Amino acid sequence: MFTPSVREALKYEAPGAWMPNITNDCIRLHAGYPAPSIVPVAELSKSLQELLEVERDRPLQYSGSPRANSLLTLVETRMQQRGIDTNRNRTLITAGSAQAIDLVAQILLTRDTIVMVEAPTYMEALETLRNYTDAIISIPTDKDGLSTVELAKILEERALQNLPMPKLLYTIPSFHNPTGVTLPLERRRHLLQLAEEYHFLILEDDAYGELYFTEAPRTLKSLDEDGRVIYLGSLSKVIAPGLRVGWVTALPKLVDTVDRFKKDLSHPLTEAMVAAYLHRIDWINRIAELRRIYRGRRDTLLQAMAKTMPDEVSWVPPDGGYFVWVHTPGVDTLKMLPAALENGVSYVAGQHFYDLGRGGTQYLRLSFSYVDESEMAEGVRILATLIRGSSNPR
Amino acid sequence: MFTPSVREALKYEAPGAWMPNITNDCIRLHAGYPAPSIVPVAELSKSLQELLEVERDRPLQYSGSPRANSLLTLVETRMQQRGIDTNRNRTLITAGSAQAIDLVAQILLTRDTIVMVEAPTYMEALETLRNYTDAIISIPTDKDGLSTVELAKILEERALQNLPMPKLLYTIPSFHNPTGVTLPLERRRHLLQLAEEYHFLILEDDAYGELYFTEAPRTLKSLDEDGRVIYLGSLSKVIAPGLRVGWVTALPKLVDTVDRFKKDLSHPLTEAMVAAYLHRIDWINRIAELRRIYRGRRDTLLQAMAKTMPDEVSWVPPDGGYFVWVHTPGVDTLKMLPAALENGVSYVAGQHFYDLGRGGTQYLRLSFSYVDESEMAEGVRILATLIRGSSNPR
Repeated sequence: MFTPSVREALKYEAPGAWMPNITNDCIRLHAGYPAPSIVPVAELSKSLQELLEVERDRPLQYSGSPRANSLLTLVETRMQQRGIDTNRNRTLITAGSAQAIDLVAQILLTRDTIVMVEAPTYMEALETLRNYTDAIISIPTDKDGLSTVELAKILEERALQNLPMPKLLYTIPSFHNPTGVTLPLERRRHLLQLAEEYHFLILEDDAYGELYFTEAPRTLKSLDEDGRVIYLGSLSKVIAPGLRVGWVTALPKLVDTVDRFKKDLSHPLTEAMVAAYLHRIDWINRIAELRRIYRGRRDTLLQAMAKTMPDEVSWVPPDGGYFVWVHTPGVDTLKMLPAALENGVSYVAGQHFYDLGRGGTQYLRLSFSYVDESEMAEGVRILATLIRGSSNPR
Repeated sequence: MFTPSVREALKYEAPGAWMPNITNDCIRLHAGYPAPSIVPVAELSKSLQELLEVERDRPLQYSGSPRANSLLTLVETRMQQRGIDTNRNRTLITAGSAQAIDLVAQILLTRDTIVMVEAPTYMEALETLRNYTDAIISIPTDKDGLSTVELAKILEERALQNLPMPKLLYTIPSFHNPTGVTLPLERRRHLLQLAEEYHFLILEDDAYGELYFTEAPRTLKSLDEDGRVIYLGSLSKVIAPGLRVGWVTALPKLVDTVDRFKKDLSHPLTEAMVAAYLHRIDWINRIAELRRIYRGRRDTLLQAMAKTMPDEVSWVPPDGGYFVWVHTPGVDTLKMLPAALENGVSYVAGQHFYDLGRGGTQYLRLSFSYVDESEMAEGVRILATLIRGSSNPR
C-alpha cells in the first residue's frame, strides 16, 4: 500500500519509544519543557482575550490576521539583532521547528541521501530524519560539541575513497540536546569551511540559543557567508512548546519550496496569540529573566549532583539551555530506568540519542527546566542511590 | 538541491493562485469560511480562559492535556452517531483535514501513482496532490456529483488496455466544493463496488457533511465494508478554520503510518480549546443551528440570483454546505474577475477547480457562508451586470 520510501521508513522503530512511562507524582527530570511556573499562562490567556476582542473572528479564520502577520516582523527583528541577514534570507513561520525539520528533510532527502548528525543528538530529529533517509552518519562529539577535526577526517576519507558525499549536517551548536555543550567559535568557523569545501548544507537547530548563562554564542547562520546554513528557531523554550511556533531562515530558493510543501499547515490562532503576547511584554527583558531563572535551576541541579552523585559519575556543566548529560560508568541507564520510575524519578536513557541506539548506554539526560527546584535534590538522591546499586564492578 | 520528486512538483503552478486579490470593502462571495457572526468567538475565548484556569500550563506543553485528549473521544462518538465503525477503524486528530490529505498523499503516492479526482474539485486538494504525483485523472461530474458510469467506463477501458490502474480517488461526496451537489446513495454504492472491483482507495472529504439542509447524506465510510475508504473530517466549517482541527478515520494500518509521519505536528492548545468548547455547548444542537443559519443564507443568495441573473446563467441549488456553482455561458470568468474586484465583489473563477486549469472557464463559485445576507443582493446585482456586459454573442 505504501510508497517504497515509506516502507523503508517503517522498518525503523516507531517514534516515541524514548518517552518514559511516568506517573503523576514522578520527579520529571526527563522533561524537556518549561516548568508550570515559567509558562506565562495568565499573560497568554489575557493576550488571546484582547486579541479576539480587537480582531474578532479574524485569527480564527484560514488566512491569519494583522497580529498573526506581525509575528514574522517580530521574529525577523530578533534575527537581525542576533546578526542574521534577513534581507538575503527568507524567514517562514512553521508549526514549531519540528515542522521545519520535517519539511527540509522531505524536500532534500531520498533514502540514499547521506545526512550527518552529532552523536548523540536530539532523538526526535533522528526519528524525523529516519522517515526520509537510510544513510545517517554519526559524527563524534566531545565536551566542546561536534568534533570538527573528526568530521574533516571522515569527509576527507570519503572523498579519497570516492564514496557518496553527505548533503546535510543536522546540528545543535548551542546548549546541545542532550549534552548541554556549546561549539566554540573556532569550531563554528571550521565547520562552515568544511561545508563550503565539501558542499554540504547545515541544518542549525537553535532552540536553546537565547538561553545562555554567561555569553551569547554566535549562531552559525550569522557567520554563514556561503548561504549553506538553514537556521531553525523556536519559541517552545522561551514561551511554550504547545503553541507550536517556530521558524526557518534560509536562502529564499529553499524557503519558497518549504513553503510550498507546508501550504497552510500553520497555526493562525496561536501565531496571532503569540504576536499579541510579544507586543504586550518586553521580549528582550523576558528572555533575560528566563536566562536568570534557568541559570538558577541549573545551579540547583548541579549542586545536588556534586553533593550526592558517586565519584565515578561525571558531567560537563552546561552554560545554557535545559540539559545535563550524565556519564554513569558501569551502569546501563536503559536497564536502570524501570527502577528509577518505580522510585519516582524519570530521565531519558542515553541510547535514545544515538542513531539506532548505537551508543550512550552508560549515559542519561537530566533536565533542569521542569522540576520544582525544591524537588531536584530528592530526585538526584534517588538516582544516585540507584546508580550505586546498579553499578557493575569492572 | 531538491529531490527528483520535489523538482517535478515545482514544475506546477505555485499554490494559492486562485485567491482573488481583494480589498477590505469587497463583498466576499469567494470566501469559503464562516461569517464573523457565525464564529463563536466569545465562547471560544471563554473556553480557553476556563481551560487555562483548570489545566494551567498543560495545554501549552508538548504532550497535550486531559481536555486535548478528550477531543478524540468526542470526535469518535460523533463518528459512531453517523454510522462509522470506530472499533474497526482508527481515528487520528490532524491539523485540519488539509494535514490529513497531505500525509495520505505523502505515504501513498509516488510521481507515477494514478490518482482520480472529480472535475471540478477542491483546488487546495489539487495543489497538495500535485506535490506528490504527476498522474491525475479527472472524472466527469454532473448535477448528482461524480458520474460513476463514466468512472466505470474509464476503469474498464484502462483494464482492457492493460494500462496502470488508479490507486486513489479523492472525492467530496456531500455538498461538493465547488459544485454544491451531493452523490445519491445508489452512486455511493456503485462507487464502493468499483473500488472493490478495481482495488483503489477512496479519500472521502466530508468537510461539509454535517451541514445538510433537508436530509443527512450517508458517508461513504459508513457504507464501507471493504476498508477502502479513508474518511476525512473537519471542524473548520462547524466551528472555525483557524483552529486547524480535523481528523482521519481509516483502517489502523494506514492511520498508524499517517501518525508516524505526522509526529507531534498537531496543535495541543487548539485541540484542548476546541474540546473545552464542545464540552461547554450542546454540539448536536449547535450543528442543527448552523444548518438553519446556512440554509437561510443559501435561500437569500439563490433568491437574489433568481431575480437578477441573466436567463442563460444557471446553477444547481445546493442542499447543504457553502457553495453555488454558477454556469455563465459565453463568459470567461477568469477574464471577468478584475472587473468584478474593481466593482467590489469577489468570486473564485471556475478554472481553478480543474486540474491544470483544463475546464471551468465559463463557471464561477459563489459562497453563501461569509457575506452578510444584507449584502448578497448587491453582490449578485454587480455580478449579473458584469456577466451581461462580458457575454460574447455566440
